[in-house]
Amino acid sequence: MYIEKNREIHLQRRPQGIPVAEDFKTVAAPIAELRDGEVLIKNRWMSVDPYMRGRMIERKSYIAPFALNEVLSGGAIGVVVESRNPAFPEGTKVYSMNGWREYFISCGKDLHSLPDSPIPEQAFLGILGMPGMTAYTGLNKIAGLKEGDNVFVSAASGAVGAIVCQIAKLKGCYVAGSVGSDDKARYLQEQLGVDAVVNYKTTESLQADIAKSCPAGIDVYFENVGGAHLEAVLNLMNDHGRIAVCGMIDQYNATEPRPGPANLGQIIIKKLRIEGFIVFEHWDGYPAFVQQMSQWIEQEKISWKETVYHGIEQAPEAFIGLFLGKNTGKMLVKLGDK
Amino acid sequence: MYIEKNREIHLQRRPQGIPVAEDFKTVAAPIAELRDGEVLIKNRWMSVDPYMRGRMIERKSYIAPFALNEVLSGGAIGVVVESRNPAFPEGTKVYSMNGWREYFISCGKDLHSLPDSPIPEQAFLGILGMPGMTAYTGLNKIAGLKEGDNVFVSAASGAVGAIVCQIAKLKGCYVAGSVGSDDKARYLQEQLGVDAVVNYKTTESLQADIAKSCPAGIDVYFENVGGAHLEAVLNLMNDHGRIAVCGMIDQYNATEPRPGPANLGQIIIKKLRIEGFIVFEHWDGYPAFVQQMSQWIEQEKISWKETVYHGIEQAPEAFIGLFLGKNTGKMLVKLGDK
Repeated sequence: MYIEKNREIHLQRRPQGIPVAEDFKTVAAPIAELRDGEVLIKNRWMSVDPYMRGRMIERKSYIAPFALNEVLSGGAIGVVVESRNPAFPEGTKVYSMNGWREYFISCGKDLHSLPDSPIPEQAFLGILGMPGMTAYTGLNKIAGLKEGDNVFVSAASGAVGAIVCQIAKLKGCYVAGSVGSDDKARYLQEQLGVDAVVNYKTTESLQADIAKSCPAGIDVYFENVGGAHLEAVLNLMNDHGRIAVCGMIDQYNATEPRPGPANLGQIIIKKLRIEGFIVFEHWDGYPAFVQQMSQWIEQEKISWKETVYHGIEQAPEAFIGLFLGKNTGKMLVKLGDK
Repeated sequence: MYIEKNREIHLQRRPQGIPVAEDFKTVAAPIAELRDGEVLIKNRWMSVDPYMRGRMIERKSYIAPFALNEVLSGGAIGVVVESRNPAFPEGTKVYSMNGWREYFISCGKDLHSLPDSPIPEQAFLGILGMPGMTAYTGLNKIAGLKEGDNVFVSAASGAVGAIVCQIAKLKGCYVAGSVGSDDKARYLQEQLGVDAVVNYKTTESLQADIAKSCPAGIDVYFENVGGAHLEAVLNLMNDHGRIAVCGMIDQYNATEPRPGPANLGQIIIKKLRIEGFIVFEHWDGYPAFVQQMSQWIEQEKISWKETVYHGIEQAPEAFIGLFLGKNTGKMLVKLGDK
């Protein structure tokens, strides 16, 4: 029924540096008739995330690179619009990794029904989804967050960072972070109760300003950026500090290797623990996370922002915007139903 | 009685780059008469260790910097030659941190009597002392060594490295390491049973040679060197690899900051854990370590080498030699009784 209307986004060229529109292509892709056991999903929301930049590079990593001239993929929320599978009747809202397209057919194996919830469905791409779970896992399981820790978060107003800030505040921590605009700084301080914020774009000395923002040093660093941020923070860590390495967005668009921090000796001097993680490996903890986070949301202890682009054809621009600081909170693309 | 004969080594200038003889001075230091409760110790062995280079820099660290024009300090084994303290009768062999001098007076608080042991006393500066405990702690407590791990050790023929290699072999691991001479490589392979050795001084590509030495990748990296070693190994680590950061001797003599590895993104991609440690913080485990290590030594499952300089006036040269690759195994200075 929707055969001729489906559009999807292909990667037509591997980006050099920050991705540009010409790296992507919007392609019409007919949808076949359903067979027994299959359902047709209409995506309503799709996620763009910084980690996708890594998949655009041809290299060995924890996940295969995106193929050229094929549809991209990523988190999406959709609804079953036609069903020949009783497990997913028409109207079921589902999460899948089949984003970057308007429609898709599934046998159901790659679908997760959303729970009934008063929380808007797209939250399952953000605060209740991968970014929220990343913040929660990184702080608790990787960094071993304790009450009273001094926490610093880079990219603190992003989809993950803003949740990190709030979870750490709920745990009774001192929290500071870095952002790329004064508006984002105000959002963190005035709406999320973050104790201090550094605008890394206007600072004269990143290290001096981070030091000022964390007068008692840093016990836990939630790393989203890398590069100069990491070097500055290493000098400011307290003994036995922990660094949860979630991302290094500063490096994702590098066209040649960028030298790392010159002060890794701090790892010994301060007996630091630095640990990288991929949230999908910790997904057994997802149900407990959703329960805790839903409770915090219902109690209005935690909030979030979304930056929304409209229409599948805007998805590349939304994705590119991640690297230009265009989002506060979760970057999303709303599909259909304009 | 020994008043006029004591000599000690002062730091008379903070080294720039690799230390030179002129950074040190041999000074006569009269010893006072003993008071009640005091003992006079004649040092027989003193230790020189790479970590001392860090203490020669004026900076905040886990331990105060050495003062200029004062006696240096470090591990030493001595014997009580005059006693007015019944806890340490004449003839008692003691360990102290009062190295870099021939004699010293102590009230006993900074002395540890050596246990009766058939093992030569200077082993308590090496295999049974700080370097041995460092190897044991770094592998077991920091890196979480498991049977079957693929282990790579930098500076593998040094005081710590050679013990790391043997403990890992005893645990049933595959072990490879890097050294700076073919003699050292032969020692590791022929005498210690190390599976593969890279000579970092003659290699054309450190990463290619380390890759060849570890055909199944690296699960545990025992880091003594830093710099190019760390960059190469990061690219070769297996998923969930652990890096115990014991030292970065490559950096100790740097006269300006050296850029770090350009590939720290590997920490995320491979979900690595990197942890620095200072062995003195783990000293509660020392008795268990001594028991285990003594047993291995008695069973001839583990062996060691010493490189010995003679006479207090040779101590600076021995120390400088650490950074010129002069030692295989533990670098020691034998005092008196030539």
